[in-house]
Amino acid sequence: MSLTVTGATLDGETVGLRCEGGTIAAIGPDVVAEAGDETIDAGGMPLVPSLVNGHTHAAMTLFRGYGGDLPLMRWLEEKIWPVEAKLDADDVYWGTRLACAEMIRTGTGRFWDMYWHPEATTRAVEDAGMRATIGGPLFDADGRTAEAQARVSGELDALAEGPGGIDAALAPHSIYTVSEALLRWAGEQATERGLALQIHLSETEQEVADCLAAHGERPAAYLDRLGLLGERTVLAHGVWLDRAELELIAARGATVVANPVANMKLAVGGVFPYPAARRAGVAVGLGTDGPGSNDSLDLLSDLKIFALTQRHTAGDATAISAGEALEIACGFRASLLGGGTQPLTTGARADFLLLRGDSPELGIGDLATDLVYAANGSVVDTTVVAGRVLMRGGEVEGTAEIVAQARERTVRLGIGST
Amino acid sequence: MSLTVTGATLDGETVGLRCEGGTIAAIGPDVVAEAGDETIDAGGMPLVPSLVNGHTHAAMTLFRGYGGDLPLMRWLEEKIWPVEAKLDADDVYWGTRLACAEMIRTGTGRFWDMYWHPEATTRAVEDAGMRATIGGPLFDADGRTAEAQARVSGELDALAEGPGGIDAALAPHSIYTVSEALLRWAGEQATERGLALQIHLSETEQEVADCLAAHGERPAAYLDRLGLLGERTVLAHGVWLDRAELELIAARGATVVANPVANMKLAVGGVFPYPAARRAGVAVGLGTDGPGSNDSLDLLSDLKIFALTQRHTAGDATAISAGEALEIACGFRASLLGGGTQPLTTGARADFLLLRGDSPELGIGDLATDLVYAANGSVVDTTVVAGRVLMRGGEVEGTAEIVAQARERTVRLGIGST
Repeated sequence: MSLTVTGATLDGETVGLRCEGGTIAAIGPDVVAEAGDETIDAGGMPLVPSLVNGHTHAAMTLFRGYGGDLPLMRWLEEKIWPVEAKLDADDVYWGTRLACAEMIRTGTGRFWDMYWHPEATTRAVEDAGMRATIGGPLFDADGRTAEAQARVSGELDALAEGPGGIDAALAPHSIYTVSEALLRWAGEQATERGLALQIHLSETEQEVADCLAAHGERPAAYLDRLGLLGERTVLAHGVWLDRAELELIAARGATVVANPVANMKLAVGGVFPYPAARRAGVAVGLGTDGPGSNDSLDLLSDLKIFALTQRHTAGDATAISAGEALEIACGFRASLLGGGTQPLTTGARADFLLLRGDSPELGIGDLATDLVYAANGSVVDTTVVAGRVLMRGGEVEGTAEIVAQARERTVRLGIGST
Repeated sequence: MSLTVTGATLDGETVGLRCEGGTIAAIGPDVVAEAGDETIDAGGMPLVPSLVNGHTHAAMTLFRGYGGDLPLMRWLEEKIWPVEAKLDADDVYWGTRLACAEMIRTGTGRFWDMYWHPEATTRAVEDAGMRATIGGPLFDADGRTAEAQARVSGELDALAEGPGGIDAALAPHSIYTVSEALLRWAGEQATERGLALQIHLSETEQEVADCLAAHGERPAAYLDRLGLLGERTVLAHGVWLDRAELELIAARGATVVANPVANMKLAVGGVFPYPAARRAGVAVGLGTDGPGSNDSLDLLSDLKIFALTQRHTAGDATAISAGEALEIACGFRASLLGGGTQPLTTGARADFLLLRGDSPELGIGDLATDLVYAANGSVVDTTVVAGRVLMRGGEVEGTAEIVAQARERTVRLGIGST
């Protein structure tokens, strides 16, 4: 079924928008519904593109607040890894459903996920109606390379037969937890299967020092030598990338996804060098990282923090404009994240939001500035992804049941109470 | 009339709470309404103290997004000061009403304000039902000391006869815009009139360098020598305070209010040294600063950014705990802001919130952590200040009219459109 929205406000004009097959078939003042269309009368609500969360581990909603005041390694070793060893597919399913409910509610339509039991993540994303690129993490720090290959091969085969609109990806965890051989294998698999590849890169300064010591080159150069740096590569974090690495990444057409909140919460000590990345021409996106280390999935909140950290770190209030920041959160500064088309145009993905224009935070000032600095995800009234209405009226149906199920999973895991 | 709330959740227990004359007369599992009480059945909603915004210029909602991507001095000289010269009392009234609506909606019950036309601010606060400490800014950088004294004396006389529960304060703008003579006068007036005194202090590194050059001492020592540092002094910012200054401030019992978002947005280059302030025993609060340089008044959002910047700057994920952060936002790490009593106890101010416990962000993890890191002000259902219900159901009555009036004022000022 097609969807037609009328009476929305775009750049001060009243417009309509007709969606067919997940893309925008028509947009403009004269668009009217055709017979049989699902219709929405926007009643003057502002129309904006939906957001793309470029890096998360969605099911970690289950670990929200669990050991969150501990330093990184104690948090991982004492809290996260022991409980992750007990995770089953249903835990991941309900944790991801909760994440999806929160993302839909706050205006995110698509996300990039790296987590265990990716088939459960896929099921959750499909049931939620969202779109995602999903990969089960590749690790062989334990020396069990063949087992990791076998598991991920199986996952990728299963995901390849999964629902349309949900993409599989290779997801080697990082250069310090994956051997050179397994990294090469991941790159080859991505090429053979025609898939994207996502990896944590240059999150901590230690990672850079260790890479230099082990390989005589910095992380981006190392990845490039192994054949992992290309147009379908997403590098999460990139906090410690230097100028030469940024230029290399730009030359290869890879995307860097900044995760400012997780970096600050885990106190990694640095900030993604956005002004240098922009100068080098790097494609840039924004991610929340897992809700265990954030703990929110409201990308507009993170967008404000991204812009603030850039202004603060540069010592320059002009380091990033509000409009530019908003484009980053929508995925439109990275072709891979944004779908390669300008948003809200004919032929673009039918991913958009209608906003509560009567929110006091949107009442004064221009919309982009208000969205970045004054508002958060609570101003979203309607979320449409691939032409499908996932929320109207600011509440995602079924959320109470999802929260109850997720809470039960935390009880099962021995870390929560009902 | 008295107010009784029943069926709220506090630390996992079901409690009631009875308010009389603006304070909590009883709280516990056995509290019941008395005849004639206004009653609220909380239906299991979590009960928490309301928040205190320790520093703002509320009416600057009118300037939200206006020149917000400019550097500080160009923003002030080209945008803010010219339009402030045109401001009248009704502008300030409607700008403040809008700020109050946003603060009530996001869980702030009290605030400290420094702005022109304080009598209009007072009227707005009274009409909104909030509580505030209000001062018109003292300046004499133009050499017109006597005029400034006369204006502020008149304002203080008028505020002294104003509504109960709204306090006047002396508000010398800063040590670099107010002469030594006028600063001394402000301190004397505060003592004579028994009022608090608020001042911007140590916001930029330049201010410290200029103070050292002009007076041979750092800003806090200078203020102390002039008699302005006492138990009823609120210092906004304090970004560049050194250890000796923090110890002096602690010894005098003064409060420092951190404004992390405005500091980052205006790129002042530093972060309030909270760990050192805590070690010195300084009373600490949190403020948004004016919505022109933030641009939000949602203190829970700022609280997350405060905690993140502290963890980030210290390079230590244990730099501040979630519970400690929440106490700061509630004013309970500063006697002057918090009313000198532990919150939610008999005899404390009847300032509290009921939260939408069914919000997905509050579903997993402990409440303090979720409030600091996962949630924002949109989880507030009910706001009660001084025993008076200012919001139920997450929407402040009359907001649409307030937004419309504020927008009209921006048109009048030549900076907005309807």
